[in-house]
Amino acid sequence: MPDYNFGIAIHGGAGTIEKSLMTEEKEMAYKNALQKAIDAGYQVLENGHSAIKAVEAAVGELENCPLFNAGKGAVFNSVGQHEMDASIMDGKTLHAGAIAAVRNVKNPVFLANLVREHSDHVLLVGNGALEFAENYNIKIESDAYFHTNQRYNQWQKIKGSDDFQLDHTSEKKYLGTVGAVALDHEGNIAAATSTGGMTNKKFGRIGDSALIGLGNYANNNTCAVSCTGSGEYLMRAVTAYDISCLMEYKGLSLQEAAEFSILKRLTALGGDGGVVTIDQKGNIAMVFNCDGMYRASRNQNHYEVAIYK
Amino acid sequence: MPDYNFGIAIHGGAGTIEKSLMTEEKEMAYKNALQKAIDAGYQVLENGHSAIKAVEAAVGELENCPLFNAGKGAVFNSVGQHEMDASIMDGKTLHAGAIAAVRNVKNPVFLANLVREHSDHVLLVGNGALEFAENYNIKIESDAYFHTNQRYNQWQKIKGSDDFQLDHTSEKKYLGTVGAVALDHEGNIAAATSTGGMTNKKFGRIGDSALIGLGNYANNNTCAVSCTGSGEYLMRAVTAYDISCLMEYKGLSLQEAAEFSILKRLTALGGDGGVVTIDQKGNIAMVFNCDGMYRASRNQNHYEVAIYK
Repeated sequence: MPDYNFGIAIHGGAGTIEKSLMTEEKEMAYKNALQKAIDAGYQVLENGHSAIKAVEAAVGELENCPLFNAGKGAVFNSVGQHEMDASIMDGKTLHAGAIAAVRNVKNPVFLANLVREHSDHVLLVGNGALEFAENYNIKIESDAYFHTNQRYNQWQKIKGSDDFQLDHTSEKKYLGTVGAVALDHEGNIAAATSTGGMTNKKFGRIGDSALIGLGNYANNNTCAVSCTGSGEYLMRAVTAYDISCLMEYKGLSLQEAAEFSILKRLTALGGDGGVVTIDQKGNIAMVFNCDGMYRASRNQNHYEVAIYK
Repeated sequence: MPDYNFGIAIHGGAGTIEKSLMTEEKEMAYKNALQKAIDAGYQVLENGHSAIKAVEAAVGELENCPLFNAGKGAVFNSVGQHEMDASIMDGKTLHAGAIAAVRNVKNPVFLANLVREHSDHVLLVGNGALEFAENYNIKIESDAYFHTNQRYNQWQKIKGSDDFQLDHTSEKKYLGTVGAVALDHEGNIAAATSTGGMTNKKFGRIGDSALIGLGNYANNNTCAVSCTGSGEYLMRAVTAYDISCLMEYKGLSLQEAAEFSILKRLTALGGDGGVVTIDQKGNIAMVFNCDGMYRASRNQNHYEVAIYK
């Protein structure tokens, strides 16, 4: 049996805080949070468990951290609620699960994984997804749990306007999503993505993070991908599956495919964002076309936590 | 200026009624409805208007016909409502619009096109999509408008169970969606897709028809695609964009790409379905892996209306 070079890569969103506004203290807080999440996922792999379990664990950690726009740190929508999206895909079976516009679920990625395991459907939204969740032991939190002062203040600045924002501040468009990709001992890969969407979002908008092939994709034959960035552009570019097709149909390497899709295609459309990706050989590519992307990667030979280019 | 071989292809769903259950009268009714829709779309092209307007017109006709599972003929969900999905994409700009889980909108494809034209978002769901619609002159119908006895009886047979169906009868799984692809005088292509989903569907399930790259895609460099079939499989196979990538990255012709994606990939996953596709040269490919697909195609040299293989 081949011994796969198991490993994991995660992101906490592309865009990031402008370097001039970043303090040493803040930078340390972000890096510590990324380290905690990558270690949680890596531990799962080291203990011989599956890539699906590893990406679920890593994304779950990121969702529990108020610094990132997912789970506890989810932004406020136009009516002051936290509506979250998440997706997960297994590269071995191509089974996938996703939820969108869901409130009060502590870990949206766990619910997406239950959809993958137990539903004939791939994507469930809103109250329907919550009704599905009632059949399982899924942790529900009050609105207060998701209230963070930072997000509330961001919302107050644009509340009532038609403006909306992808993440953190009103100074610049920040692109908030979290995600993970992993390869396990047995050569299976998986991807998971989770987000709170855009501050002041309206109209039941769903972005790429809940959508298989767009914000999230995994296929043992090619790669696992989790996207972050301006969701509408990632959707129109079908970015996650584009990277897979560039490998399968054009013979590009993982790094070449991720660079082509983000630096050429997404950029040509006018979109900002990035991806973390892994293939069955354990190659990891983390590519973005903006100032920075909160990210980390770890395998047996390599350990990296980074924010800027 | 090149004179493009403008044309249009439509479908009214894959799966169809089993040949042994089809009467001459029913067959005629379906064919007349398909002819009316293809003519409506073709007329738009002949008058020099855009591919987007042509697919919108053709799908609008199919939505107005009670025979197809979209608009007026939409199936009943688990609580006796009609929740509809639709999407549209412009191959010139890659602009796209989509709506999901929307009730009471007479022509969901018109609303999807308004999202494409006027929203910064791609996909709006449920009441949010309806709130967006309030800004525009979009026709709303009562629940009674969407009540057809055929659909109601289908629902009664499985109501209260955990079963759900993709379309018409309880004898067999029928796969109901409508869609159109077109090439206009100016060499622009477009795709539109619309559906009422599955009888007795629950949990806010969204299928491929509302999802760009999955059930619907258009790109002047490759092709326009509208899918129909078992939505969850089309989603996991990212079928619409897969066909585009097979052309762009592997150099396949439209026909080859559609056949590979449906007859090989979708079939290998265990999914049933089909596609109508068109490219900038005016080639049309209509491919399905089940008994039949309600379909029609028309250009200056060719006019076809068909159901079975």
